[in-house]
Amino acid sequence: MESIDKIHGTFERRAAEVKEGNVPSAVIKRLPRYHRYLTDLLEAGRLRISSSELSKIMNVTASQIRQDLNCFGGFGQQGYGYNIKYLTAKISELLGVTEGYDAVIVGAGNLGRALASTRMFGRRGVRRIALFDIDEKIVGTEIYGIKVYHTDELYEFCKKEKIAIGVLTVPKSAAYHVAKTMSDAGVRGIWNFANMELKLDNPDTIVENIHLGDSLMTLCYKIKEAGEKEDNKD
Amino acid sequence: MESIDKIHGTFERRAAEVKEGNVPSAVIKRLPRYHRYLTDLLEAGRLRISSSELSKIMNVTASQIRQDLNCFGGFGQQGYGYNIKYLTAKISELLGVTEGYDAVIVGAGNLGRALASTRMFGRRGVRRIALFDIDEKIVGTEIYGIKVYHTDELYEFCKKEKIAIGVLTVPKSAAYHVAKTMSDAGVRGIWNFANMELKLDNPDTIVENIHLGDSLMTLCYKIKEAGEKEDNKD
Repeated sequence: MESIDKIHGTFERRAAEVKEGNVPSAVIKRLPRYHRYLTDLLEAGRLRISSSELSKIMNVTASQIRQDLNCFGGFGQQGYGYNIKYLTAKISELLGVTEGYDAVIVGAGNLGRALASTRMFGRRGVRRIALFDIDEKIVGTEIYGIKVYHTDELYEFCKKEKIAIGVLTVPKSAAYHVAKTMSDAGVRGIWNFANMELKLDNPDTIVENIHLGDSLMTLCYKIKEAGEKEDNKD
Repeated sequence: MESIDKIHGTFERRAAEVKEGNVPSAVIKRLPRYHRYLTDLLEAGRLRISSSELSKIMNVTASQIRQDLNCFGGFGQQGYGYNIKYLTAKISELLGVTEGYDAVIVGAGNLGRALASTRMFGRRGVRRIALFDIDEKIVGTEIYGIKVYHTDELYEFCKKEKIAIGVLTVPKSAAYHVAKTMSDAGVRGIWNFANMELKLDNPDTIVENIHLGDSLMTLCYKIKEAGEKEDNKD
């Protein structure tokens, strides 16, 4: 333990040397992926990992990994590698996982329920504190332990509970109205599954879009391309 | 109509000049997004659009749009703009939408049901021809008009029906086994929602991963960053 503490000390000193806000946005973009792999390793009971092993698992060069992690003081130790717990904590802090944001999910259809049941939120420090829907049959019930409210109560609820994240899984036709309600109530970020662009008046409301269709199309393209290569071989 | 036909002719001649497979991969990556916007415009009854209007809607420079679309013969006409139908058809062809791939969804939980009900597949030329699950209570029933089979039948079904795309929405613990079964049965691409990396023996099986958690994390980061800017202003 002594040596680990010592290494931690070194980590912290070096980390302090890296000025806040100096992590390039290209690195920030890659951090969620690091976080995912490192969390899996932690859950599997691993304590440390070398850049070459991490490189193999993540299919990235070891030098890219060293470069990326050095940006925020994640220095590997010769013959020891990276301290997974430290790295995960540091990445979590950088990404806002440690902020403990509260979220609501609007739309308790299939997708809303899938999002209510997944462990994805908790692993990223986000608490789902309510579901909203217009279906009177489910208002007042609990889905996966999360209470369902009527969408009419959305504005008041978000304002009172200082909700940071609104997850939007309502039909396209209702998406803008619901998003505006949340934005007006001070919700800071909207995770948009409604498959449409949201143009909100409030420029401070952040919108993160999920476009599953784009991913399906990329898959179709890769299949087509692989087929053409196959044909050319014949 | 005469002028449109004439322009179409010009399009086709120029398109033929662009050699197959010469579209840079960076452009290919952006095409699903063009397809999405153009399909929305088509559904709204629009026939043509100028690069400057498309640029405003898509929040990309007009010169980027001209450069991207020129790659595959999508030449705009002075004072006329782009023919939306032609562009959509050309992008669809490039991306494999016109191949008419058949897909199965494995896992009829909340996420599987959400994917069974969405119009996203049809809009990209993909037919969902079966759902698979291990829950005997739903095997034999139909969900959103799609018949549910037992996962035991997956291998035979995919082989017989020459399934191109397998959508994986099973729990992590079952993901590898199900993916391998599909890969062995000749399924060419796996759309992976199981939130784990799949390492399959068959190098020809394409895996397209959906990592919703990475997107949630990006949102958290942007919220945190915006908050810090706000704090610095005070």
